[in-house]
Amino acid sequence: MRWTRTFIPTLKEVPAEAEMASHRLMLRAGLIRKLAAGTYSYLPLGWRSLRKAAELVRAEMDRAGAIEIFMPALQPLEIWKETGRDAAMGEVLITFEDRHGRRNCLGPTHEEVVTDIVRGELRSYKQLPLNLYQIQTKFRDEPRPRSGVLRSREFMMKDAYSFDADEESLEQSYRTMYRAYARIFALAGLEVTPVEAESGAIGGAVNHEFMALTAAGEDKVARCPACSYAANTERCECPPPGARAEEPTGMKEVPTPGAATIEQVAEFLKVEPARLVKTLIYTVTGAGEKKRTVAVLIRGDHQVNESKLARLFPGESVELADAATIERVTGAPVGFAGPVGLKIRLYADAAALAAANFVTGANKADAHLMNVNWGRDLDRPEEARDLRLARAGDPCPRCGKPLELASGIEMGHVFKLGTRYSAAMGATFLAADGKPRPVLMGCYGIGVSRILAAAIELNNDADGISWPVSLAPYEVLVLAASPKPEALKVAGGIYADLQSRGADVLFDDRADVRPGVKFKDADLVGFPLRIVVGDRGLKEGVVELVRRRDKKIRKLPPGEAAAAVLEELADLRADIEAAAGAAAEKA
Amino acid sequence: MRWTRTFIPTLKEVPAEAEMASHRLMLRAGLIRKLAAGTYSYLPLGWRSLRKAAELVRAEMDRAGAIEIFMPALQPLEIWKETGRDAAMGEVLITFEDRHGRRNCLGPTHEEVVTDIVRGELRSYKQLPLNLYQIQTKFRDEPRPRSGVLRSREFMMKDAYSFDADEESLEQSYRTMYRAYARIFALAGLEVTPVEAESGAIGGAVNHEFMALTAAGEDKVARCPACSYAANTERCECPPPGARAEEPTGMKEVPTPGAATIEQVAEFLKVEPARLVKTLIYTVTGAGEKKRTVAVLIRGDHQVNESKLARLFPGESVELADAATIERVTGAPVGFAGPVGLKIRLYADAAALAAANFVTGANKADAHLMNVNWGRDLDRPEEARDLRLARAGDPCPRCGKPLELASGIEMGHVFKLGTRYSAAMGATFLAADGKPRPVLMGCYGIGVSRILAAAIELNNDADGISWPVSLAPYEVLVLAASPKPEALKVAGGIYADLQSRGADVLFDDRADVRPGVKFKDADLVGFPLRIVVGDRGLKEGVVELVRRRDKKIRKLPPGEAAAAVLEELADLRADIEAAAGAAAEKA
Repeated sequence: MRWTRTFIPTLKEVPAEAEMASHRLMLRAGLIRKLAAGTYSYLPLGWRSLRKAAELVRAEMDRAGAIEIFMPALQPLEIWKETGRDAAMGEVLITFEDRHGRRNCLGPTHEEVVTDIVRGELRSYKQLPLNLYQIQTKFRDEPRPRSGVLRSREFMMKDAYSFDADEESLEQSYRTMYRAYARIFALAGLEVTPVEAESGAIGGAVNHEFMALTAAGEDKVARCPACSYAANTERCECPPPGARAEEPTGMKEVPTPGAATIEQVAEFLKVEPARLVKTLIYTVTGAGEKKRTVAVLIRGDHQVNESKLARLFPGESVELADAATIERVTGAPVGFAGPVGLKIRLYADAAALAAANFVTGANKADAHLMNVNWGRDLDRPEEARDLRLARAGDPCPRCGKPLELASGIEMGHVFKLGTRYSAAMGATFLAADGKPRPVLMGCYGIGVSRILAAAIELNNDADGISWPVSLAPYEVLVLAASPKPEALKVAGGIYADLQSRGADVLFDDRADVRPGVKFKDADLVGFPLRIVVGDRGLKEGVVELVRRRDKKIRKLPPGEAAAAVLEELADLRADIEAAAGAAAEKA
Repeated sequence: MRWTRTFIPTLKEVPAEAEMASHRLMLRAGLIRKLAAGTYSYLPLGWRSLRKAAELVRAEMDRAGAIEIFMPALQPLEIWKETGRDAAMGEVLITFEDRHGRRNCLGPTHEEVVTDIVRGELRSYKQLPLNLYQIQTKFRDEPRPRSGVLRSREFMMKDAYSFDADEESLEQSYRTMYRAYARIFALAGLEVTPVEAESGAIGGAVNHEFMALTAAGEDKVARCPACSYAANTERCECPPPGARAEEPTGMKEVPTPGAATIEQVAEFLKVEPARLVKTLIYTVTGAGEKKRTVAVLIRGDHQVNESKLARLFPGESVELADAATIERVTGAPVGFAGPVGLKIRLYADAAALAAANFVTGANKADAHLMNVNWGRDLDRPEEARDLRLARAGDPCPRCGKPLELASGIEMGHVFKLGTRYSAAMGATFLAADGKPRPVLMGCYGIGVSRILAAAIELNNDADGISWPVSLAPYEVLVLAASPKPEALKVAGGIYADLQSRGADVLFDDRADVRPGVKFKDADLVGFPLRIVVGDRGLKEGVVELVRRRDKKIRKLPPGEAAAAVLEELADLRADIEAAAGAAAEKA
């Protein structure tokens, strides 16, 4: 392809709205353009890279024995009612009424549709195992679309669904996908860490996320450097501390004028935040929009983990109560809630339950209680809960050594669903013993659009993108660094040579653009290799072969350039293939 | 691929809801399954064929110099307001409000989005010409989804958009796409006829549809066997006939009790339907939902062409008035309207204006007027209009010879849009003379999902589908027609041999299915070639190579089977390639 025949609108300016490097670079390199909040058009180079990512995923799914299908984005809301997920998905699910008054939605994921297909065709265990996947556009009405294609309202996803007759077979399907994912991310130039994760609205017992660790990621991961434990902090277990060995002293009310936050109270009373116990009021909404309030107790230096909290209320939604509700329930303005005398149900984190002589709100404006003790000043809740977010330095739930925290981008998620969907929708089969059973399912998702953004986030420098060879819009750029006919002719010759040898090559044939601009564009877009044909080199009878990643330059006679490019590309591909092999081995 | 490792749920029964052969066969061969009205999941075989259709289209677009991009389905309604198409598309456009209260729609086509992209980047004529295309899912809330994937609410479409600096360049872009389309349909095994067509809500002056002629098609085409003229009947011009040379006789009212239709009146009065002039009352809805009624006069043996009628009222919608309106306007029940004494504006088809001594309704129940004459009994409208549908035998508007009618499926549509979108949305460039001008556009659509259905509609027999080699889910099937280990071993060997030579091959390795079922499935799915390994043949030392299209059988030693298959496949491909070359030549 010639630069002048395609459409590569690079930008000199850094777009104001883009905070993440990948977002900025995708706009600047002319890969994408924004249409509206959370929706992007892929321009020619971006689309080439996205298609490469999709083909890479497709090849590995095929290799793993999954079978490709394609399901509609437009879905009748009824099948979501069968699993109760029409409510569980909340506003993320885009719904509308069609001209005939039927309720439709746009698929944010396809468990219901694939289960509907399979229940129509599945009869015998002989048809199992089966793994159906698709690469398809998903729609989610995100509350806050951001970071370009990383969190958008429309994106490309690979979703696979496995169907097995028994747990052993499901475990095998799950492991096969897990290993395929390790290979896929390595092939895309991404180092990923599999972590235990929350299942959220998808459901199921066992699940893992694949995290690309980068400071810009919006997910938090807790990892133990001593053992192999790693988990999303939403999921990470927090072992209960031992009870504080301290003699109870006298509870007293103290004035804390204007001190409503943990920091203000700790400062005012000259105590450590760990000495405080926070009382958070939540509203739980159950079936038929019925609401009740509960109190969550957590140590002052800890944060509530709302994923863990949500698990206490299956099928219901939980959110922080509004100020009016808090005032009604506690009789005090926000900031002064406390458990003593509170008439609603208490849920206490284990660390809060282990506290002694602690400080709480007094359910009265500008006042707190000091030296509060469980059993004496208020009833001890029956159960100690794990309701908090893990922090750096917390003990590893497996080996007890201190955990480290890191940020990451969630690249993929694999779930064992069990019979969550098949039981609800009646997808059964006759087992070998002749009895009908709901089929065991797994589901396996990869954000394909996200692969691009993460690959850029992890592979860029001050000049621009440095693509892994597997995702580069073109693997090699031929650049005429002079407007003289001789340079253009030699460059054109090398371009033609590379094309005839089947290389994936772009020729910057722009005649009205200075070499400096061409160099900047080449670095910005980030082709793994480039051939530069300049006047000075031609005098010496050489052209330059430049490797983007380390800017290493080889000088070669023009006639040897194409062969050298193919050699280096083969090396780059072999490196990636080796990394993929190693990743699969480790998985 | 092995049959037992993929998912091919063929059906013995003919699905009740499917009327068209392609719809029935796509369901029976396990290519698709219905999710809801107008939405279908593609199962493994259907998806393979659809991907082949998409790849075929992609390769030809690339070859024609168009550049691939990918635009969002989710679009802000504002850009549709810029062109006024939010109203023009009517209920076909799916719209909804998102969680932030913004109006969104799902793209039924992408003129607005692509124009938005280009207006952001286009500066100079030096960036032109440019042709951007995508292969993407479209959404349309069809009033009556039917015929499987032929008219569905979600479908795969290839849409290309050209941008040119002047008319000459636009003409070249248009011709390039026109030729590419001729090639594409030939490569898909479809014989198509380009016809002049209506532009509908898309707009623009020049446009052509590519029709696959088949009795099952829902479009009607008028063709002249004497000259090259061909047009959708919606578009086909009807030259005005000469005035009827007949002396006016006395107008008289006659009773026609209960005779309200043309047939009843003609029968009752013993006159030819051509002697009658129908008076149809239409409601025209303009800006701000303002409504008025008009009368359309058309000869009794003709039909109103509502596409032509709509052209009289640009930017307004026209539909047949309801019974209450007709009674109010004419003072008579439906069936007795007439132009004499009518107070609303009359639009008369040329053939109705050429009539003399004609019969019309009397605007009175159970009564008609005979011997009505223009100028004497009612004012002659200023203009003769062409408002009727062409009929078989009508004179060709080019050469005057009688037209023939045929049915067809619209496979593609190409439009010269001119500045319809660029002017409305401000997509301008600086021309060579330094002056800003709106860019000239064209748009070019192909229903990719429709290619599958049409290919099946045109290539099937009593046993099932007979795929063109370019679209077959697999090009060759290896079938073990015996459960004996020897047959399975030989078949497996040929399968392995074909695989290692890169053939696109499926192996029916089912052990628990009778050979008769395998044969029926093979014919139903319609693989172009199949190798049958049976006990009898093996005794003779041969296997059978069967060509699906004509059931021609070659007997071959097993060791020669793979080579023979590759040879025949090469022949089939060469035939298709030759047809494509010829079609492009002719276009």
